[in-house]
Amino acid sequence: MDKKTYSLLENFMLSCMEDSAHDKEHVYRVLYNALDIAKTESNVDYNVLIASCLLHDIGRKEQFENPALCHAAVGSSKAYNFLLGHGFEIGFAEKVKQCIQTHRYRKNNIPQSLEAKILFDADKLDVAGAMGIARSLVYKGIVSEPLYSLLPDGTVSDGGSDSVPSFFQEYKYKLENLYSKFYTARASQLAKERQHIAEDFYNSLYQEASLPYQNGKSELDKLLQ
Amino acid sequence: MDKKTYSLLENFMLSCMEDSAHDKEHVYRVLYNALDIAKTESNVDYNVLIASCLLHDIGRKEQFENPALCHAAVGSSKAYNFLLGHGFEIGFAEKVKQCIQTHRYRKNNIPQSLEAKILFDADKLDVAGAMGIARSLVYKGIVSEPLYSLLPDGTVSDGGSDSVPSFFQEYKYKLENLYSKFYTARASQLAKERQHIAEDFYNSLYQEASLPYQNGKSELDKLLQ
Repeated sequence: MDKKTYSLLENFMLSCMEDSAHDKEHVYRVLYNALDIAKTESNVDYNVLIASCLLHDIGRKEQFENPALCHAAVGSSKAYNFLLGHGFEIGFAEKVKQCIQTHRYRKNNIPQSLEAKILFDADKLDVAGAMGIARSLVYKGIVSEPLYSLLPDGTVSDGGSDSVPSFFQEYKYKLENLYSKFYTARASQLAKERQHIAEDFYNSLYQEASLPYQNGKSELDKLLQ
Repeated sequence: MDKKTYSLLENFMLSCMEDSAHDKEHVYRVLYNALDIAKTESNVDYNVLIASCLLHDIGRKEQFENPALCHAAVGSSKAYNFLLGHGFEIGFAEKVKQCIQTHRYRKNNIPQSLEAKILFDADKLDVAGAMGIARSLVYKGIVSEPLYSLLPDGTVSDGGSDSVPSFFQEYKYKLENLYSKFYTARASQLAKERQHIAEDFYNSLYQEASLPYQNGKSELDKLLQ
């Protein structure tokens, strides 16, 4: 890819970002992660990979405004139309569209091409480890969801049996289980290196949150009698 | 304190919370932390302590709407007026006011009474460890501030020399240095037990954020030539 083409795609990506303070750096991390993974694979089409990474989240704004929409579906169509409208070949636009369509984890919509698998892994790597914890917590602030829910007895739920959204619920339902879901060996290795900090953080936060309730409520009950 | 008085203060606290999903649980953690610390001190006035803990952040909404206001100053006046308006003695209202006034870290406004020191420590304990990291990240989402800034050379800043707000900047300027600032031995001990997870998390996040830029940018430059 030449620098002019890269800039065209990069500027289109930046124009699509609702909240560029957060999201554009995620896009660069995904691109750089993807180039790292690609070095360990053979016959990677770098033009398809770079374009797919840059454009993979351009449908986020539409999904945020209407949660019934899937940003992978919206973004893949937007990317396809943008590429055709700027003189890219239809075969190239279709390959990029396929990559973006399958970058979100869905059982019936799995990545097929090598570039699609690398994008998927590079994106999921940004939900692993400390980065995944940090991004999830920032998102909880954006959408006004709490760190945890309380159980009927007034103690802190670990999130594992919660139906109400919270950080602990997201950790238990999504973040905890992603480490076995990578396609490439390199991404799997990088994710596993990050796994312990995410686990340590969750366990520490659960301890710090739950112990005060366990001990403090009984202390308070004694004082209020 | 009797249960009726506790409920009166608790309900006033809840009515003052802009975003109760996050903030009310902070108040309960501070109260429970304070009761834990108080067990290791002598001659604690539990009525003053419980009222001060419950009401310490009731000025948050005013500060959020007008950052020139200090929530400790606003909250202490609101608490004083509420207590006088509900038949509490003036001496009690003044003690609670003092505690709330000095719970925020300011060099020229330090806690004087034992109850003020316990409130200060219990509140700061909720900025230590994983909880401090989690609450800071959620807040970054609420106010749309990024995880990190980039240096002029395109690498990730560790936050230590930043003037622009970000999570890394807040960690370096506030979270990293709070562990020596406790008044009570019990809070100091609890904070130190939590220090390593905050440090580990920051260090891991910095590695996860900065390595892709370091390696990825040069890979990209090669591909774009």
